[in-house]
Amino acid sequence: MKFYYAPHSCALASHIVLEEAGAAYQAVRVNFGANEQRGSAYLAVNPKGRVPSLVTDRGVLSETPAMLVYIAQIHPQSRLAPFDDPWALAQVQAFNAYLCSTVHVAHAHRMRGYRWADDPAAIEAMKKKVPQSVGECFDLIEREMFKGPFVFGDTYTISDPYLFTIAQWWELDGLDPARFPKLAEHRERMRERPAVKRAIAMELG
Amino acid sequence: MKFYYAPHSCALASHIVLEEAGAAYQAVRVNFGANEQRGSAYLAVNPKGRVPSLVTDRGVLSETPAMLVYIAQIHPQSRLAPFDDPWALAQVQAFNAYLCSTVHVAHAHRMRGYRWADDPAAIEAMKKKVPQSVGECFDLIEREMFKGPFVFGDTYTISDPYLFTIAQWWELDGLDPARFPKLAEHRERMRERPAVKRAIAMELG
Repeated sequence: MKFYYAPHSCALASHIVLEEAGAAYQAVRVNFGANEQRGSAYLAVNPKGRVPSLVTDRGVLSETPAMLVYIAQIHPQSRLAPFDDPWALAQVQAFNAYLCSTVHVAHAHRMRGYRWADDPAAIEAMKKKVPQSVGECFDLIEREMFKGPFVFGDTYTISDPYLFTIAQWWELDGLDPARFPKLAEHRERMRERPAVKRAIAMELG
Repeated sequence: MKFYYAPHSCALASHIVLEEAGAAYQAVRVNFGANEQRGSAYLAVNPKGRVPSLVTDRGVLSETPAMLVYIAQIHPQSRLAPFDDPWALAQVQAFNAYLCSTVHVAHAHRMRGYRWADDPAAIEAMKKKVPQSVGECFDLIEREMFKGPFVFGDTYTISDPYLFTIAQWWELDGLDPARFPKLAEHRERMRERPAVKRAIAMELG
């Protein structure tokens, strides 16, 4: 498998899960600085022009929530998602969908406001609200969703690297980690996992 | 199970799938006009203050992509998702994630801009771009993702009601169905399905 990523993007979640699962893959960096994600070579891989993408012998897969479940499912020995319990799997999926469609989206208004408005003043207004909108998402996760020590209690799942990846953006989004004590502790603990260290070293190396 | 919905919302996708699956459930309307989704009674059900929510004897489930897979999985005889093939399931999940985190989000900038900016002029600027941003999403689906006659070819899956639900918003988002001939034909055909008719009749009745 070929895994396309960009450093500091949400691709890190899938990258960590590939490492946790012991998957056989080759990591390929997409140079966002050179706008490579909008170039014809990459658009031939993923017409959405985004990362991550996973190229397999059956085709190309994109979208983090889909990729996390897929990597876990084809590496059942890694036990990264509860495939034997539809309810537990649904909870994992709901958590990941919230990260993808609400938390990541709120964050994206800091750097990618041009997706949703053309007026430069509107794009500035979006940037300004990011600490509030992203902050309220993490308040909800801290208060209502996170069980501890992992997202779903004692069992590590694909939701943990995904939460960790988005929590890495707190400081740039204007948020103080002290506001989310349980999540901040989780973030520190995640940083010590060998799979997390390997994925980050590969991306920043 | 209790299914909380609001008319004209993305809850319709899960509602159709409940009907397709022959699920035993009670539908409960949340009155968005009276802002009931932010009232303490509903927040006790779903602290996100959004629909849909599915209350089961194991707890509450939210987030459309999670709910669609869950309903399909607990009604295996309905064959609404390819659980026996991780790759095919991943494609369904990727399609649903795109609808949830990109298409629905682009659409939401027409009515819910206040989530991402406070300045009224910025909120107006967001509204203005909706026909373009949502239009580009459906261009991509028409051109690259939709196989026909259903999303994934001959087999009807949970992605079909979800696509149909968001395509119902075209006109209000300022889009001409003629721009997406394959998807427009799909939308017409979906409207004739008994399960779709029952779910819509229940929501608008």
